[in-house]
Amino acid sequence: MKKNVLIIGAGGVAQVVAHKCAQHNDVLGNIHIASRTVEKCQQLVDSVREKGSLKVAGELQAHALDALDVEATKALIDKTQSQLVINVGSSFVNMSVLQACIESGAAYLDTAIHEEPEKICETPPWYANYEWKRRELCEANNITAILGIGFDPGVVNAYAAVAVNEYFDSVSDIDIIDINAGSHGKYFATNFDPEINFREFTGEVWSWQSSSWVSNRMFEVKRTDDLPVVGEHTSYMTGHDELHSLSQNLNVPNIRFWMGFGEHYINVFTVLNNLGLLSEQPVTTAEGQEVIPLKVVKAVLPDPSSLAPNYQGKTCIGDLVKGKKDGKDKEVFIYNVADHAEAYSEVGSQGISYTAGVPVVAAAILIANGEWDVQKMVNVEELPPKPFINLLNTMGLPSRIRDEEGDRALSF
Amino acid sequence: MKKNVLIIGAGGVAQVVAHKCAQHNDVLGNIHIASRTVEKCQQLVDSVREKGSLKVAGELQAHALDALDVEATKALIDKTQSQLVINVGSSFVNMSVLQACIESGAAYLDTAIHEEPEKICETPPWYANYEWKRRELCEANNITAILGIGFDPGVVNAYAAVAVNEYFDSVSDIDIIDINAGSHGKYFATNFDPEINFREFTGEVWSWQSSSWVSNRMFEVKRTDDLPVVGEHTSYMTGHDELHSLSQNLNVPNIRFWMGFGEHYINVFTVLNNLGLLSEQPVTTAEGQEVIPLKVVKAVLPDPSSLAPNYQGKTCIGDLVKGKKDGKDKEVFIYNVADHAEAYSEVGSQGISYTAGVPVVAAAILIANGEWDVQKMVNVEELPPKPFINLLNTMGLPSRIRDEEGDRALSF
Repeated sequence: MKKNVLIIGAGGVAQVVAHKCAQHNDVLGNIHIASRTVEKCQQLVDSVREKGSLKVAGELQAHALDALDVEATKALIDKTQSQLVINVGSSFVNMSVLQACIESGAAYLDTAIHEEPEKICETPPWYANYEWKRRELCEANNITAILGIGFDPGVVNAYAAVAVNEYFDSVSDIDIIDINAGSHGKYFATNFDPEINFREFTGEVWSWQSSSWVSNRMFEVKRTDDLPVVGEHTSYMTGHDELHSLSQNLNVPNIRFWMGFGEHYINVFTVLNNLGLLSEQPVTTAEGQEVIPLKVVKAVLPDPSSLAPNYQGKTCIGDLVKGKKDGKDKEVFIYNVADHAEAYSEVGSQGISYTAGVPVVAAAILIANGEWDVQKMVNVEELPPKPFINLLNTMGLPSRIRDEEGDRALSF
Repeated sequence: MKKNVLIIGAGGVAQVVAHKCAQHNDVLGNIHIASRTVEKCQQLVDSVREKGSLKVAGELQAHALDALDVEATKALIDKTQSQLVINVGSSFVNMSVLQACIESGAAYLDTAIHEEPEKICETPPWYANYEWKRRELCEANNITAILGIGFDPGVVNAYAAVAVNEYFDSVSDIDIIDINAGSHGKYFATNFDPEINFREFTGEVWSWQSSSWVSNRMFEVKRTDDLPVVGEHTSYMTGHDELHSLSQNLNVPNIRFWMGFGEHYINVFTVLNNLGLLSEQPVTTAEGQEVIPLKVVKAVLPDPSSLAPNYQGKTCIGDLVKGKKDGKDKEVFIYNVADHAEAYSEVGSQGISYTAGVPVVAAAILIANGEWDVQKMVNVEELPPKPFINLLNTMGLPSRIRDEEGDRALSF
């Protein structure tokens, strides 16, 4: 049994995490929120208090922290007696926060893979470049570290495990499809930090095909699906974290990730990318100022958290799985549909942040109650998926399955 | 008789001016080139020497100068004994260079209207905001100052004067049409300094209609014309300097400016503009760096002077004039067609720089030989147009006229 949560980060996902932890603070204990800017953490504290999200009386405090500083992070973990650290800060701080957890004995959870600021799209499998180098250290120190436990990566990894374990004798294809059919009403905006969001699309697109890595360019390969609730949508093969663990942990020859984009998004992205404005390499202005173009694009785009109040429509994210069962071809689609306005009403965030933030809190609960306290480093498909899917059903992210028997709720 | 030329600026237009002055240094005398970066001036000097452009032996020197510094500019005018100052530097330095000329007694010529860095698209007529405030001072000091003597503004003002004087009893409409049918082979580039280029399109589009100012948005109003040599092109109503003098100096109720754009240009412009990346107002990055987005866009775009070697195709710029002659409706199109590759071959610049740079040198010659040494501040339509058009015919910018009698060379 572990308790007391330290949330690192104060963006849109942290907002969801703070509210969801508060709703379950009878299990999770005290809640502390830390980021570089303490005012942003305090806004989350205030939001939780305003909505009355705390289930029982308990500590809820904001802290200033540079999460790249391992000693400072350790000190805060110790001071707050946090046994659960939920890292939803920048992707650049994963390794330093993980190190602080290893040295403090706290469990570690994150929702996205580690990145180094100056590198884009490294050699696959990506987890082997940073996180997996600490596997032995975690096991030696009995550290529970769950990597990539948002929705995608995260829930979609659990869906893949369920499909492989429950519905097939052998699986040939897992296509993870992520459609945001919502509308924020702005000319253009990204749903996450633009710096991280665009980095997904500017490098090589790695996919796992015929049991080896294949490289494409962004927007080179597309598909169109008729999906539950949101209807027909076109999505594009995209590099994504979960391919880099699923390919290593499941015996499935084809695993691809597809993200939905409208033509307008692609046009804006293409213009910015072709002009060099999405580059993380500095340029020098005529006045001699050195500037990273991507950081300027980020500065002019709407803050993703500002989109929430007017976001309308739904997301549909799921795993389309193909294989054999009892000698016959079989196909299932395991998925969730989330609603932007409902998410905003409950926790003050839009649906994209909601689908990323709820699963990591569910995982923290499963560590707290011992079911997932595995005392080693794991990706989500290595954990028993059923308690996780069942818990999400009660926390606002219900799972469904569509196959030859129809479309129905998924629970175990 | 005036002689010795000081060229201020070292960009693509300055390159043309340097070569053309050199080709006429028997009339113009010594040539000095000054800008903030002396190395860029030296490159122009080297280019003139390499091409052997100097007609007769004479001085040709590079100088470092901050043209916003009136005293330094005066000192350089005095030191070089320049009686002719050709300002083809940034549009931000017009007023300081003009002041230096007034105090030194030198003639002043420029090719574009003065701008203040933080202001976009001021109240019409634009010349009244800055230049015309010095009219009395110029007259009192016998200073010849010719404003806007590039192609447009410049030659198109002379075409308007010729039309009004020679071909009509009354003119109802002057539509100045500027088509660049050339191709630079880059994904996207501007033909002039992007900072100045985009500023033309981000503010209100002022036009002179029914003898009053009308405001539109960029790309709101368009027309399609079948033009000599370049064929059918779509152009968009655009705010432009010459409307702000022609409207005041000619008794013509409708004067509009139209610039040709392809769909790709409009798309890129629209994306950048809608995102706020063409703004001259600073934004602050997440890291706290204050940056002017337009300066970063400028830094990532190709240097306009780098386009010249591969620029192919032609420009067509002219005045479509409508009115009455002998009681009958009449229409004439007075125009020039220039070739990018020919311009590069002659002076190392593309056609857009060539059409802007040749006229100001022709004007300097007309001041030097006394024909245009009017000892006051004027816009081009106030000067006798015939010697100017005749001189341009011999300097690489031949004029033509198309009317009910056909299409033929224009000379007097």
